[in-house]
Amino acid sequence: MHGAMTAPYDALRAHFRDVALLGSTSALLAWDQETFLPRGGGDRRAAQLALLATLAHERATAPHVGEWLARCEADATALVDDDARANVRGWRRDYDRATRLTAALVAELAEVESKAQQAWAEARARDDFRRFQPWLLRMIGLQQQKADCLRHPSQSRWDALADLCEPGMNAADLAQWFGPLRQRLVALRERLAGGRAVDDGFARVAIPEAAQETFVRAVLAAMGFDAKFGRLDRSAHPFCTKVGDDVRLTTRFHRDRVLDALGSTMHEGGHGLYEQGLDPAQFGSPLGEAVSLGVHESQSRLWENHVGRAAAFWEWCWPLAQRHLGAACQGYDAAAIHRAANVVRPSLIRVEADEATYDLHVMVRFEIEQRLLDGSLPVDALPSEWNRLYRDYLGVVPPDNRQGCLQDVHWSCGLFGYFPTYTLGNLYAAQFAEAADRALGGLAPMFARGDFAPLREWLRRHIHRHGRRHEPAELCRLVTGSALSPEPFLRHLEQKLGAVYGLA
Amino acid sequence: MHGAMTAPYDALRAHFRDVALLGSTSALLAWDQETFLPRGGGDRRAAQLALLATLAHERATAPHVGEWLARCEADATALVDDDARANVRGWRRDYDRATRLTAALVAELAEVESKAQQAWAEARARDDFRRFQPWLLRMIGLQQQKADCLRHPSQSRWDALADLCEPGMNAADLAQWFGPLRQRLVALRERLAGGRAVDDGFARVAIPEAAQETFVRAVLAAMGFDAKFGRLDRSAHPFCTKVGDDVRLTTRFHRDRVLDALGSTMHEGGHGLYEQGLDPAQFGSPLGEAVSLGVHESQSRLWENHVGRAAAFWEWCWPLAQRHLGAACQGYDAAAIHRAANVVRPSLIRVEADEATYDLHVMVRFEIEQRLLDGSLPVDALPSEWNRLYRDYLGVVPPDNRQGCLQDVHWSCGLFGYFPTYTLGNLYAAQFAEAADRALGGLAPMFARGDFAPLREWLRRHIHRHGRRHEPAELCRLVTGSALSPEPFLRHLEQKLGAVYGLA
Repeated sequence: MHGAMTAPYDALRAHFRDVALLGSTSALLAWDQETFLPRGGGDRRAAQLALLATLAHERATAPHVGEWLARCEADATALVDDDARANVRGWRRDYDRATRLTAALVAELAEVESKAQQAWAEARARDDFRRFQPWLLRMIGLQQQKADCLRHPSQSRWDALADLCEPGMNAADLAQWFGPLRQRLVALRERLAGGRAVDDGFARVAIPEAAQETFVRAVLAAMGFDAKFGRLDRSAHPFCTKVGDDVRLTTRFHRDRVLDALGSTMHEGGHGLYEQGLDPAQFGSPLGEAVSLGVHESQSRLWENHVGRAAAFWEWCWPLAQRHLGAACQGYDAAAIHRAANVVRPSLIRVEADEATYDLHVMVRFEIEQRLLDGSLPVDALPSEWNRLYRDYLGVVPPDNRQGCLQDVHWSCGLFGYFPTYTLGNLYAAQFAEAADRALGGLAPMFARGDFAPLREWLRRHIHRHGRRHEPAELCRLVTGSALSPEPFLRHLEQKLGAVYGLA
Repeated sequence: MHGAMTAPYDALRAHFRDVALLGSTSALLAWDQETFLPRGGGDRRAAQLALLATLAHERATAPHVGEWLARCEADATALVDDDARANVRGWRRDYDRATRLTAALVAELAEVESKAQQAWAEARARDDFRRFQPWLLRMIGLQQQKADCLRHPSQSRWDALADLCEPGMNAADLAQWFGPLRQRLVALRERLAGGRAVDDGFARVAIPEAAQETFVRAVLAAMGFDAKFGRLDRSAHPFCTKVGDDVRLTTRFHRDRVLDALGSTMHEGGHGLYEQGLDPAQFGSPLGEAVSLGVHESQSRLWENHVGRAAAFWEWCWPLAQRHLGAACQGYDAAAIHRAANVVRPSLIRVEADEATYDLHVMVRFEIEQRLLDGSLPVDALPSEWNRLYRDYLGVVPPDNRQGCLQDVHWSCGLFGYFPTYTLGNLYAAQFAEAADRALGGLAPMFARGDFAPLREWLRRHIHRHGRRHEPAELCRLVTGSALSPEPFLRHLEQKLGAVYGLA
């Protein structure tokens, strides 16, 4: 039976390697679009991406995939090993989902995503919510249809969509974490407002972009990002993508925002280390893929915040900064930069938010998108509800929709159930960082001497190498010994920021 | 009937747009490989390219293409217009060729091309012809099989392969041009050797690469290369490729070879203007494609040599060079640079050859590849035969095979019948330049004031916009009023170089 069973498994591996070759080719098309594509090339690029997406979907839903899966499952004990069983489970999950969507719905979604995103970009540029409103309405309708294709009878639409981003995530679990988290974060924000004034002038010192670039490249190399299998370029919005075997990061530079360039680079570098840590021999198989958006975000936030905003990190990094940034560093020291990197200041824009208020931005979106999907919030009430929640959670009120409900691209391109993975990323990051600190006998001394290899290898061994072997919740228990909890994250913030702001 | 006939035509257009989307996606994969791909990404890149090639070949040879073509041809008068008829003719030619090759042969060729090229690169690096010999033998066997699939009973194998590069090209016509051309070029080379000494020291002056880059970018912009639909990067071997609607050029910089950087940029810029001049509305159809490799090369050589090596061009370009290159220009003037750019010096390496000896390199290869294909030259006799012909035609003898028969990549990747298109390009370029000069009332005064628009638009109107509407030979007659002849090229060389070398 063994020989008879490996045949369909081998067929699945070869088939999904081809699907992944198409996917990674799309990744190059998308990367190029954000980095080097001349502006006249956009229309044809959209057509190339649409064709590749169609070809990949056709292959991912081919009937013989179902037959091969059934043959593997009919005698699962005959599969070679645990790896093979994990891959078959992953393919099964993907196949059942993909085949539940009709080709017509997939095509309509692709078209409306592209058009709604253009309408959103125009609406945002002109601060004209009503220009986006009909497209948002149509997109919500399509997402409801999509959720209805996917959901189990007892599952809400939001949960069905969220499960695509984070396997096992649901609104009830999130609400359980988010309730206390919000209270503690709001309380922390109010307490810090009564602390000492923290000078973050360094964040706005003018420094030539070329100097910033050599500096952040040195930090990225120290993190252990492998330039043989990756590169760093520039784009308006930093991102990380994998093109086959090589991992491409982007960052951004502004003359007067060196800490933004560093934070963006370390954030994307964390994503990149995850991608470089996946097993290349499992290319195209679930074991060679990231387990979830939340865990992916945990890797970026861990390097950005638990490393890059740690006092010990700046002991090592400050001499490096002085070497690369020169005169701009005069009058500062490592402790001052550590404080500057940890200033808390409630703001209107999520992507510019500090570590302590970021998740309050996420919670606004989490509440709103559930109600948009279940119909209890009419689309035309979105701006006022958005502003009301910002006042409640962050104590700030957007002066216009551009800095309010039009700031994020996500809903225009059909990403519902996505935002909470940012907060899950923060929670996972803190819990993983605590576990690593425990297991490695204290990370701070390593950071202080610029030795990031132990942390990186620990993450690789405990998280990256597993790909999609475990559910995210299970992975968290295996890595940290406990279920996911907001406590490590709150401990981390309260300790670090309490010290920065001189609170008892 | 009209409505019934447009349906299969529309189907063909849509079908081949998709094929072209796949082709242009492959072009991006290949461009990235030569410019930005991290070195660890090579293996997966080869797999991506192989998959895309297979998908494109499947589509290009799909049986319904044959049915649509037959329906269009059954009542050709019912096709909408001449454009439609020209496209159907082009698709028919491509389809008949593609379907004559078996899938097995296509797959074996793809594999051996990749492996033989790697063997060639190693053999060249170690100057070890015997390492390449078995692969060349195998490649010749495959090319013979391919030619046998393609050729008409009366056609030679070489002619069948050459026709893929240059529709209508055959060895008999070439021999008719090449015989007298070789005699006149050898005579010219000998005459110039007796002329005055020409100082080309400027070609070797040390100039920072950044300064060279702003200089060549200024020249490229003046040529009219449209940056909205194109870009210029660097690679080891300069090339031009089209990625959908945008055209990507590369060039190279060496501190002490500014004229090489300029020549490479203008050469690739000429290719780029051709690609930008094709009708984007005909994307995927023969009317939107370059007519032949020879005509493509004519555009690059025209800009590189008839513009970039003209005395009038340097009247305009020298102040520009002084502005960008600074102190390096001291002690020279426009006339001196024009002479430096036109030095003739027989050499061993084709890609470094001057305008007067370049075609002698091509003729060596043309003679040898015919005899390799018809079996009259055994592979192990290639090095000695190569060296004998170099002594005869160029008066130089390669000291090793690296600078001899191992210098070019072409044969290793199956490009037989390709080399002569370089010389056709030179002949077409001279004949087109003469015709443009006549039609526009003298190009030199335009060049002297940096006004390249009239020439560019003339080329666009008479050559680029037609795509594959005409056979190359017919296009030449339409554009210049005469059949292709080596006379304009020889006139151009003898006049210009005679003046440079102070001959009567």
